[in-house]
Amino acid sequence: MLVCHALTGSQHVASGGESAGQASAWWDEIVGPGRPIDTTEQYVVCVNVPGSCYGTTGPASTDPRTGEPYGTAFPPVTVGDWVEAQRLLLEELGVSRLRAAVGGSVGGMNVLEWAKRYPERVDRIAPIATAPRLDPQCLALDAIARRAITADSDWQGGAYYGDTHPDDGLARARQIGHVMYLSKESMERKFGRRIAGGARPVGDEASAAFPYREVESYLDYQAETFVDRFDANAYLYLIRAMDEYDLAAGCDSDAAALAEFDGAALVLSFTGDWHFTVEQAEGLVDSMTTAEIDATHRVIDSDHGHDAFLVEPESVGPPLAAFLAPGPGESEASGCAAPALCPD
Amino acid sequence: MLVCHALTGSQHVASGGESAGQASAWWDEIVGPGRPIDTTEQYVVCVNVPGSCYGTTGPASTDPRTGEPYGTAFPPVTVGDWVEAQRLLLEELGVSRLRAAVGGSVGGMNVLEWAKRYPERVDRIAPIATAPRLDPQCLALDAIARRAITADSDWQGGAYYGDTHPDDGLARARQIGHVMYLSKESMERKFGRRIAGGARPVGDEASAAFPYREVESYLDYQAETFVDRFDANAYLYLIRAMDEYDLAAGCDSDAAALAEFDGAALVLSFTGDWHFTVEQAEGLVDSMTTAEIDATHRVIDSDHGHDAFLVEPESVGPPLAAFLAPGPGESEASGCAAPALCPD
Repeated sequence: MLVCHALTGSQHVASGGESAGQASAWWDEIVGPGRPIDTTEQYVVCVNVPGSCYGTTGPASTDPRTGEPYGTAFPPVTVGDWVEAQRLLLEELGVSRLRAAVGGSVGGMNVLEWAKRYPERVDRIAPIATAPRLDPQCLALDAIARRAITADSDWQGGAYYGDTHPDDGLARARQIGHVMYLSKESMERKFGRRIAGGARPVGDEASAAFPYREVESYLDYQAETFVDRFDANAYLYLIRAMDEYDLAAGCDSDAAALAEFDGAALVLSFTGDWHFTVEQAEGLVDSMTTAEIDATHRVIDSDHGHDAFLVEPESVGPPLAAFLAPGPGESEASGCAAPALCPD
Repeated sequence: MLVCHALTGSQHVASGGESAGQASAWWDEIVGPGRPIDTTEQYVVCVNVPGSCYGTTGPASTDPRTGEPYGTAFPPVTVGDWVEAQRLLLEELGVSRLRAAVGGSVGGMNVLEWAKRYPERVDRIAPIATAPRLDPQCLALDAIARRAITADSDWQGGAYYGDTHPDDGLARARQIGHVMYLSKESMERKFGRRIAGGARPVGDEASAAFPYREVESYLDYQAETFVDRFDANAYLYLIRAMDEYDLAAGCDSDAAALAEFDGAALVLSFTGDWHFTVEQAEGLVDSMTTAEIDATHRVIDSDHGHDAFLVEPESVGPPLAAFLAPGPGESEASGCAAPALCPD
């Protein structure tokens, strides 16, 4: 089973149970022993996508030709490249066929691309909180976010891998993204219009004349931890992969792109998600139906916004578990077209 | 009749008919001879709000103490200050009572503040595409936009009134605002995901690796014309006035704030507006009803987003005209409590 992470996620999908002592796995309540994606029954693979900065090769990696970080000399990456990298890894692992590909947000695009590119190699797809392509509103906000990075003088054309990083630009970019991941309702509940107890962070003296509200304080805190953990160029590369993704690229339609896939699909969408909307999910399911895919759309009533797929395991887990359970007459090993190739 | 302009609007509400030869009046199809706000029957006043840069005093004005522009030494302005400035002007003009106060967006907040502060001086209020206060999602985006300005090294702590202005920061701030004014539907219709015909503007070479889409090209064009016409500090000041506005400030509730107003109210909201939502307008009308105000809520079905109040005069005009028409037994002059004070 392949799990595809979201934009700034990583391969650290699960900590392996509470005893493993690892924090911050992004889908701990979905993936693990006895979880909806049950690691006592399934062999689960999650890998960091090329272009990212969590162990794979990306713009922050050393270019062997120069001995310096690639920076913007790193080639552009696409969602298709991610599928190819995953496919090569799975072949290396001896997995010729996936029981399922599951993922949320741009990870859901990654899942869709699997069904388009290698329809015969995947039995089930669960694209969650995703769409066949971004709408122009999201493209616009992503473009503004990118400019916040490239306009930061510390970005230095992408060659910033010395002492000074474009932290301010990356913080603004992340904050724009963060607003996209929340809903009005969740922000109202979390922050309202309350004034923050603490002071503005060092470096934001220029805004001292403005009240510092909890919502801004929260976004500052999130941005601060983000710039410590993420590479600005990687963010540019991954945003581009997401913006450019179009399921129908090279085909006449989304349905045509999925025409060869004859497995089952579970599409999950969330009512409060304005990054990837319920309407987009409906369109996707319509295309799947046109392609004669056995597709189910579960709309989850939630006010958590796009983040719902991460923060509402109680909503995501049950339909996912039911979808991934072996059907009548389907053995646990049925996912392996060539049993000899299955991992031990 | 007082018309209150929106954030970056001006006193140039109408050009006075096609023969006047003036372009770019922001509500030409609503205000003018024979228009819903009929200047052959009504004396219409629209003034630039303090803090702005279209003729009133603001941070770009010369500080008489120093002979230099105020910059951030200019005192903060509030929506209440706008009402006071308008009141003083109206008194100077000899107008002691308004037949109506009408305005959209933050101009609608301006209208609400009139009913709160001087309930006996206004007969009718028409707050359009507005709310008693911004929600935290809008506060967050405004905070990010402000930081785009203050983080621009050309902002220079607000003392930039020489050769170099924080055009890039102001452009980013405006683009964030612009996305807030549109809807997903209108952006889909206008731009979709189409690639722009032209090239990226000079100065954006850093983004050359990214496809230049029509939506980005449009936002760039809008931002370019905006930075030519608007002062970055004025933008900071006006955004703060909007963010800080709270109808209920100093009162127990919105209803309490409006308790002394015994005129009529027409609230217009637009289904595609996510800056100021239909739900916020519903809440406002509920408060008005609690305050025993004769309030009507017209929800206009529109996919134009917040901009609808500007770009759909055919939707705004008829209900506004009906609302502003003299009632039975109400003469044209009835708006003047003291006829001797009416302008000639």
